[in-house]
Amino acid sequence: MSLIDSLASVFSGKIISDPTDMAAFLTDWRGKWTGVALAVVQPDNTEDVSLVVRWCNEHGVSVVPQGGNTGLSGGATPSATGLNVVLSLTRMNKVRDIDVLNNTISLDAGVTLLAVQEAADEAQKLFPLSLAAEGTCTIGGNLATNAGGVQVLRYGNARDLCLGLEVVTSDGSIWNGMKSLRKDNTGYDLKNIFIGSEGTLGVITGATLKLFEKPKSKVVSFIALADPSAALRLLKLAQELHSNELTAFELMSDECIQLVEKHVDAARSPLASRSEWYVLLELSSSSEEQALSSRIESLLEIAMENDWIADAAISSSIAQFNAIWALREDISEAQAAEGKTIKHDISLPISAIPQFIDRVTKRLLDSYSVARMVVFGHLGDGNLHFNLSPARSLDKSQNELFTSIEAEVNKLVHDEVNACNGSISAEHGLGVLRRDEASRYRSEIERNLMSSLKKSFDPKNLMNPGKVIS
Amino acid sequence: MSLIDSLASVFSGKIISDPTDMAAFLTDWRGKWTGVALAVVQPDNTEDVSLVVRWCNEHGVSVVPQGGNTGLSGGATPSATGLNVVLSLTRMNKVRDIDVLNNTISLDAGVTLLAVQEAADEAQKLFPLSLAAEGTCTIGGNLATNAGGVQVLRYGNARDLCLGLEVVTSDGSIWNGMKSLRKDNTGYDLKNIFIGSEGTLGVITGATLKLFEKPKSKVVSFIALADPSAALRLLKLAQELHSNELTAFELMSDECIQLVEKHVDAARSPLASRSEWYVLLELSSSSEEQALSSRIESLLEIAMENDWIADAAISSSIAQFNAIWALREDISEAQAAEGKTIKHDISLPISAIPQFIDRVTKRLLDSYSVARMVVFGHLGDGNLHFNLSPARSLDKSQNELFTSIEAEVNKLVHDEVNACNGSISAEHGLGVLRRDEASRYRSEIERNLMSSLKKSFDPKNLMNPGKVIS
Repeated sequence: MSLIDSLASVFSGKIISDPTDMAAFLTDWRGKWTGVALAVVQPDNTEDVSLVVRWCNEHGVSVVPQGGNTGLSGGATPSATGLNVVLSLTRMNKVRDIDVLNNTISLDAGVTLLAVQEAADEAQKLFPLSLAAEGTCTIGGNLATNAGGVQVLRYGNARDLCLGLEVVTSDGSIWNGMKSLRKDNTGYDLKNIFIGSEGTLGVITGATLKLFEKPKSKVVSFIALADPSAALRLLKLAQELHSNELTAFELMSDECIQLVEKHVDAARSPLASRSEWYVLLELSSSSEEQALSSRIESLLEIAMENDWIADAAISSSIAQFNAIWALREDISEAQAAEGKTIKHDISLPISAIPQFIDRVTKRLLDSYSVARMVVFGHLGDGNLHFNLSPARSLDKSQNELFTSIEAEVNKLVHDEVNACNGSISAEHGLGVLRRDEASRYRSEIERNLMSSLKKSFDPKNLMNPGKVIS
Repeated sequence: MSLIDSLASVFSGKIISDPTDMAAFLTDWRGKWTGVALAVVQPDNTEDVSLVVRWCNEHGVSVVPQGGNTGLSGGATPSATGLNVVLSLTRMNKVRDIDVLNNTISLDAGVTLLAVQEAADEAQKLFPLSLAAEGTCTIGGNLATNAGGVQVLRYGNARDLCLGLEVVTSDGSIWNGMKSLRKDNTGYDLKNIFIGSEGTLGVITGATLKLFEKPKSKVVSFIALADPSAALRLLKLAQELHSNELTAFELMSDECIQLVEKHVDAARSPLASRSEWYVLLELSSSSEEQALSSRIESLLEIAMENDWIADAAISSSIAQFNAIWALREDISEAQAAEGKTIKHDISLPISAIPQFIDRVTKRLLDSYSVARMVVFGHLGDGNLHFNLSPARSLDKSQNELFTSIEAEVNKLVHDEVNACNGSISAEHGLGVLRRDEASRYRSEIERNLMSSLKKSFDPKNLMNPGKVIS
């Protein structure tokens, strides 16, 4: 019996081994990495996953778990050599249970993030994790990478939203940790070991998540200001006055907004004049919209009197609300339309951000005339997408000049992040993209602890090998 | 050179080896466990801790980390046999740094919880972890046991409040994980492995914690209602209307309040008539107190119209606020004054709590006429202190009749908890008290994962051996 026939015989789900049909699973969606696989398997249930992983363990075949295949760091793409099975969870897409009194939902790992949000919404609840790929990415992938997004300031990362997990471990055992408890201190925190481990310690097959009350009203404001220092002052004021209601605090440079206006139909700043920087500030709560609006108004009045801000618009309809949010959410797409990109997903102590942006922008532009900065991010979480695009002076044929500086630029930016005790991967995970750089900044003891954890949970190194740690 | 002299020579902090001076460190504060130690060491800094642990590792001596020695599960008491060193962190009590813009505080593990709260307060911020032992317990102990307390509903457990850790590992290495970031996905989550591991994987020597805005106003209400089902309805309504501001939702039976009134001077229910059950509900926010009070009033009006509640009092002064909270906080002390106790620190899906209380109370009282129930807890977190005291009919000389049922009662209660997919240790940890029971409810794979983690982080089994897992 061939290996593929042997694998196909042990479980009841779908198996794909035709190269054409496998192709979509073997390349990440940005097209940066392509790998090889013996087969792509799509189990129907946790038992199936267990049988597949046990078979792989017995046959020395690597397991590469994959959700919606929307990751940005290559964590779900198999390596280009070796014996790999891609374990696609997308057919495991059932909501198992909703408990509205307990504010929890339990589901298969292959449910898309959008479907989680919709299931919560149907139960008159909110599941707050929200990010660009939500229509395709799966909750299992979100947990495996500890995804962030635009509501972390109020509700936390994927890790903070998870109460319980079901995991198939490297030998094919099923760990049922599907608790739905707010408090549980009965041993080591296995759940948080698997969350963020990108499938290298086990395969997440199910999860129990927190639900929240749906806010009655949401109001967003688009605010012009001179620099990130002013944005930080505004953030502090907003936290002092309305910490209960502050849901998002996003920073973006005028360059970002110009790109969105250029590349996205109908996108337009709601403000009459331009400014170097903008903030998107959202309040949401169980109050009436009118009350929220006047809270933002008085907040902005104080900021205006102090000369921290130059101008501001406040949403007074759903259309305006969505239009302001679109300016922020379309930046990535607009930057992509402008040509090659160099991206950094960094986080810093919030207090260090204004000086960091000033200093590192200056260093980069002084050294690399082929680049311009495209800086935006979740200022309230200390998380910047500190990106670069080719300089306006560069025509498209000169793009390789820009591409050639990527490694140097990464090193410059990440060394600066490290010097500020920041993180070089705030919400995108390590995958293969940042694996070696992350290792370079680690202390020896940290490398030892992580590698000993990996050996202990995956002694044969068959769970998504080569991701997170080498 | 004797072992003690050898130990004393490697570090610069204090060493205690006189049996009389050591006594206070060798017995837990409830007096349930007493152990032996070669010495008690009190290092001055992290380097010192590292040197002590390295010495222990080289000499095959067990390390028993201890903070304020206020734990309820015997996790900080050395075993009664063997070669132990008690590693007391209380001399490491410096606040290292406060960053008000980043909303973080970094400190030594030996700082008392009260001192953390006070340092935050001085900086016009809030550190919300709060529990009865806060004047004595240390933040290192709080993190090692993932402590809970009365504000978990709004702010989370100790785990949720921690951004970074410094840990001395079993070989004496210092892991510097003192990040102060809201987002960081650069590898396995070592921080959450150490939090809640009760010193069995390493010694927490420092931490970086989240700070919050101080609420401008707080209002508490004491509410009479017929049963836990009504309390659950009220909780749901409070969450729907005021989830942003709901800080505490505590349930207690009339038995609890009667004990407090009997044993605590000046304690008195603010309500004219008695009821079987009471709820303490707190709102806090950046609004004015008047606004909060009227929100509670309209909430209670709805509940009254629906016949969910019978009567209620709302605090209108600091004295009233404190008096209502004292009724809740003095229950443990009042129960202790009544004689022997049998305690359970359990958590359940919140939706399961009313039926659980009914069913298990009936089973217990039907089987054990020597007992009465003393039930209270953090209903908003699903965490009950499902306790028993000797029946009123029992005089003190018959206390052993009550004590003799403890093991059976524990088993009955914990089997019921397990059947509801609950936890038998919500916020007190396992220590030695619940170690074997917790193991009994664990699946084989869970036992294997925990024991493999322990072996990997502490190969010689010298870090607080015999705690958490056997």
